[in-house]
Amino acid sequence: MPDTPLTPAVHAEQDGPADLGGCRNATVIGAGVIGTSWAALFLAHGLHVTVTDPRADAEEQVRAGVEEITPTLAALGLPTDGLTGRLRFEPDLAAAVADADLVQENGPERLGVKQEIWRTVEQAAPAHALFATSTSGVPATAIAEALEQPERLVVGHPFNPPHLVPLVEVVPGQRTSPETVERACALYTALGKKPQVLRKEIPGFVANRLQSALFREAVHLVAEGVVTEAELDAIVTDSIGLRWAVAGPFQTFHLGGGPGGLPHFLAHLGTAMAAGWPHLGRPAFDEPTVALLSQQAQDAFGAEPVAGLAARRDRAQIALLNALREDRGETA
Amino acid sequence: MPDTPLTPAVHAEQDGPADLGGCRNATVIGAGVIGTSWAALFLAHGLHVTVTDPRADAEEQVRAGVEEITPTLAALGLPTDGLTGRLRFEPDLAAAVADADLVQENGPERLGVKQEIWRTVEQAAPAHALFATSTSGVPATAIAEALEQPERLVVGHPFNPPHLVPLVEVVPGQRTSPETVERACALYTALGKKPQVLRKEIPGFVANRLQSALFREAVHLVAEGVVTEAELDAIVTDSIGLRWAVAGPFQTFHLGGGPGGLPHFLAHLGTAMAAGWPHLGRPAFDEPTVALLSQQAQDAFGAEPVAGLAARRDRAQIALLNALREDRGETA
Repeated sequence: MPDTPLTPAVHAEQDGPADLGGCRNATVIGAGVIGTSWAALFLAHGLHVTVTDPRADAEEQVRAGVEEITPTLAALGLPTDGLTGRLRFEPDLAAAVADADLVQENGPERLGVKQEIWRTVEQAAPAHALFATSTSGVPATAIAEALEQPERLVVGHPFNPPHLVPLVEVVPGQRTSPETVERACALYTALGKKPQVLRKEIPGFVANRLQSALFREAVHLVAEGVVTEAELDAIVTDSIGLRWAVAGPFQTFHLGGGPGGLPHFLAHLGTAMAAGWPHLGRPAFDEPTVALLSQQAQDAFGAEPVAGLAARRDRAQIALLNALREDRGETA
Repeated sequence: MPDTPLTPAVHAEQDGPADLGGCRNATVIGAGVIGTSWAALFLAHGLHVTVTDPRADAEEQVRAGVEEITPTLAALGLPTDGLTGRLRFEPDLAAAVADADLVQENGPERLGVKQEIWRTVEQAAPAHALFATSTSGVPATAIAEALEQPERLVVGHPFNPPHLVPLVEVVPGQRTSPETVERACALYTALGKKPQVLRKEIPGFVANRLQSALFREAVHLVAEGVVTEAELDAIVTDSIGLRWAVAGPFQTFHLGGGPGGLPHFLAHLGTAMAAGWPHLGRPAFDEPTVALLSQQAQDAFGAEPVAGLAARRDRAQIALLNALREDRGETA
């Protein structure tokens, strides 16, 4: 191993987080946007974080990313002093996981690459380490076919970025053990996330499928000239977005059914809604559609660099998260 | 006319709202949930409101409804003293609109009924009165075929309930005048709403089509056993709901594209998303599906009466609205 890792004993005595079920060392595989966001979140919860990535500029990228994320973590009420003092880099994958209690992998979305990564990890990591992949598209079942201990691997798919959006879809493969699922949920919860276990592996999981279904109709409505992108976005934020931030679609329609709840809603409005389903749009990303969507994005959002717009969006997001936590009587 | 309406001159001198472009008297046709909510909103903005409905218990229902809504209006920062002092009831439709500056119709969703209502209104209302229908399903073009002044009628479709959710879809018919659209938007804006003009009449308009597209996939995922209703709702509130309360789907993917914005997103992830569209679910509300959805609604939400659950949802909604307004530097 090129570097001597800090010893777990030192972590435990000095600043080991008490509420993370003994988890002190997290290894983040992949120094992209998702990996950096996980690293920042882990650091803010007191973990020692090792980032591994073969790219030469990984360390520079992650340090800059963590610095950029730090004000957001602070606004969410997390401690941010000395974050990067617990951050180290280790290009060698086996060395990087040698002391890991948690391995969160954010590698390329290709089955072969992920299998190779996880084969190395399971041979080099401690026997108790929890294995999670951030994949949004490769099933744990498929990755685990290459492993000797398939029961240890689970999908922990964050909604981007993980340091800000609470959801983590926890998707067990066919051979993932219940204990792994339980440990993953407990750990994500302790990290302030809202894990949700899926009962079946399905392409796209749940959040992205729902998002995709709505976006399909959004593209249709813009392509048909019913509204522009900016107008559609305003419609969403001023109606269903607000609603669904507070109550999901089933509760919304349950309440929409009055005293009779969802059964009443389904009986009275559900049939009319279902009758409209075949008439929802089926757009394609052909050249004219992509050109139209790109032009409208330029018109709607082009005046401001993406980073600035994202920062404002995230600030509003934090205000909203803190307001909801306060409403629920949780501490911010 | 059975009742002598208050004269407009008295309203103007005593408490006529200055910012509503001369609108002092609103007539709400239909004393259901939507009509009651509009009435409460109009009252809180200083309008004199006449409610007309042939039902014998209309007055009792609306007074109870306004009373129930009043704390929400107060929480939104609106004045609520003496609201019902400006509320009156008039079962006769022609008499009810005789002094109206705004007529907001919430009658049954049947073309013939709406045509009959509006024929009466256009003959009895002042020449300057603005005509808006809350319909979610009957096009203004079709209703206006029965009118002598089709240019005066526009759809002003609120997202329920109008006193709380900002969106109003303003949908002109083929013969609606630009002036009518402009006046409707100005008035709804002055009432604290966020009107959005649609460029084409389309069944379901925009918000309900988007909602329906997402709900279709939600029903599929529950019917397939991937998640329960409660789990799906939690996934939405903890991810896309939060996101879309702050930035709509196009801005979300524009930011998801990094510095390259939406064009980059479409080029790199759009194709993969579109490839999944044919595999989204196509559920039906057949008997087993309705039974499953009803049972799960009972399991998820049945422990609490709908009214209590709705009140908690609305309280969270208000916290969120106020947080977003504060973030935007608007007064609450």
